[in-house]
Amino acid sequence: MTGSPEVLRMNAGELIRFCSAIFQKLGLSESEATTTAQVLVAADMRGIPSHGVGRLRRYVNGLKTQQMLSNPKQRVLRESASTIVVDAGGGMGPPVSEFVMRKVIEKAEKTHAAFGCVRNSNHFGIAGYYAMQALEHDMIGIAMTNTAALGVPTFGRQVMFGTNPLAFCAPADKHHAFVLDMSTTVVTRGKLEVCDREGRSLSAGWAVDKDGLHAQDPKGILDDMLARRGGGILPLGGAGTEQSGFKGYGLAVMVDILCAVLCGAPFGPEVYGTPESSARVSHFFGALKIDGFSDPQSFRSNMDRMLEGLRNTPLAKGQERVWFAGEQEFENQKKAEKDGVPLSLNTTAILAALGKEYGVEIPNITSQSKGERP
Amino acid sequence: MTGSPEVLRMNAGELIRFCSAIFQKLGLSESEATTTAQVLVAADMRGIPSHGVGRLRRYVNGLKTQQMLSNPKQRVLRESASTIVVDAGGGMGPPVSEFVMRKVIEKAEKTHAAFGCVRNSNHFGIAGYYAMQALEHDMIGIAMTNTAALGVPTFGRQVMFGTNPLAFCAPADKHHAFVLDMSTTVVTRGKLEVCDREGRSLSAGWAVDKDGLHAQDPKGILDDMLARRGGGILPLGGAGTEQSGFKGYGLAVMVDILCAVLCGAPFGPEVYGTPESSARVSHFFGALKIDGFSDPQSFRSNMDRMLEGLRNTPLAKGQERVWFAGEQEFENQKKAEKDGVPLSLNTTAILAALGKEYGVEIPNITSQSKGERP
Repeated sequence: MTGSPEVLRMNAGELIRFCSAIFQKLGLSESEATTTAQVLVAADMRGIPSHGVGRLRRYVNGLKTQQMLSNPKQRVLRESASTIVVDAGGGMGPPVSEFVMRKVIEKAEKTHAAFGCVRNSNHFGIAGYYAMQALEHDMIGIAMTNTAALGVPTFGRQVMFGTNPLAFCAPADKHHAFVLDMSTTVVTRGKLEVCDREGRSLSAGWAVDKDGLHAQDPKGILDDMLARRGGGILPLGGAGTEQSGFKGYGLAVMVDILCAVLCGAPFGPEVYGTPESSARVSHFFGALKIDGFSDPQSFRSNMDRMLEGLRNTPLAKGQERVWFAGEQEFENQKKAEKDGVPLSLNTTAILAALGKEYGVEIPNITSQSKGERP
Repeated sequence: MTGSPEVLRMNAGELIRFCSAIFQKLGLSESEATTTAQVLVAADMRGIPSHGVGRLRRYVNGLKTQQMLSNPKQRVLRESASTIVVDAGGGMGPPVSEFVMRKVIEKAEKTHAAFGCVRNSNHFGIAGYYAMQALEHDMIGIAMTNTAALGVPTFGRQVMFGTNPLAFCAPADKHHAFVLDMSTTVVTRGKLEVCDREGRSLSAGWAVDKDGLHAQDPKGILDDMLARRGGGILPLGGAGTEQSGFKGYGLAVMVDILCAVLCGAPFGPEVYGTPESSARVSHFFGALKIDGFSDPQSFRSNMDRMLEGLRNTPLAKGQERVWFAGEQEFENQKKAEKDGVPLSLNTTAILAALGKEYGVEIPNITSQSKGERP
């Protein structure tokens, strides 16, 4: 690596309109297109570019090849006062997810606790986006998804579950909300790809090879894992039992049960994409209305006190700051609102090519600098 | 270590009656005494002796010094069709937990999703016990508790949360249920104590010292941590960010929010015991009725298929078996039902002393052997 990466910035609203216009050219309704664009741009704003507009090409290809359907037959399979199960009909992940989380919140307004599953869906972006829909309703929000299988159980050597992220958020008062948004594997595929690009070997505890032993070579493990020849990413807690890898393994399976088994959808190694068909994934959403348990204003004040305490934890030698979950992302978001959405050169090139292809004008670059996190 | 530890076995029913009789001598009602005894014995049967009858002396001392109250003023603070919050009045953890989980299940029978908090409580034993109450009702069960603060946030050097376990279970059909029951720290205090007894140093990633750096000496870290001089146990994922320790940190805080902040109870470093008063902990319970989402019989069959798949994961070189969460514990339980509850020599001595002190006859030892796991 030489020097810092180039960071370009674009206005958030314009970037959303740009992505939305492209999705509309591919047949999405204005509302679906906008929601999908908002979820992608939110990821870049929060500093999670792996789930941002850099994926636009993949979404576009998905729609072009009909691996993602622009006009899906969406159906409610089961519904009660506090539960809902929706078949997304192979459509885009974000619109159906935003919709089901909204329904879950409506239900929780009445019943204090509500949950929803979405099956037969596609990549939904950052889980935290949907969990955070609950915040302004004085609710705790929950969102999870299963993914194509990339994770290996403790003592195994073959992928049996996805990176299966879970998001959990709770509102505070003066502070940003607590927003945990984490994959249940120790790292995600993106991290392996970065190592591959940068010619670094993998840290111990991240992945196993075809024999189930410590994988060092990122290229080899990526190839073998995706071709299902064996090997894959380890659960949170790493290899074996010394660092309690069985806990991350258990959490990954928990997410798969809630997203997929609960609504009768494919799970575990059944979830995978091929050149002909996308991995049809499932999601799980939940909301708990705080006033079913205690006064929401006291809850928010206590959250402030908790988060304040965590921020002010005495520091380990050599460290500069203790963060609480989501705090860094909110700071990124504030900066992006003010200065524009940070994008890498590579991502900007993808956008420019798509803009040309679909006759949509790409937003102006508002700033260009080195050394900032994209 | 020389040789295998001695393992004695006692009949489960007799051991429950023995513990219950002692609790009754200390003022607990027959029903509360029996529930508390059942939870302790269940831990030993499932192979979790750290939470078993070896704790009887601590519970007895708690009751004698009135750190745990035998006749607490228990109050329902808030209740709705799908939520309940109970102040345990400083009583024993197991009876109020078993009661609130029962209420949560009753509510979920009607509303498909219900949750309860218990505040002002004491040690409740294994979280999995309460989560598993949901299984026979075709529900997913959830149980969590906060604990005295022992865990250090990523980049910190002072304890800010407990080992905060969470349990999640889902019923299968022919197979044992999936029962995840895990602390959200990488290890628990018990593991540090074992290293101390055996003169071993701590693995990297388990704990930090007063400066927030890798702690090797178990005795030093235990002393400093309990006296709040700094240092403590790391979250699942270990130190720093390389193995994603911030994920375990986030999960531990999530458990604290659900157990304590949600019902206005003490959280984080406010939770600790002194010689004069016990750490008043809080719990969280939940149940999701499967038929709010899909047909329970299909769910169970799909769980069988999932668990079967996990068990049959191709093995890493040198490994003998892949387990799913809870499987090993159910096998232990079956053996304990047949052969008796395994107890260490040390635990048996505690029981004998307490039996003598309270005039309760200790159960016969049904077998004695070496080399089995206690």
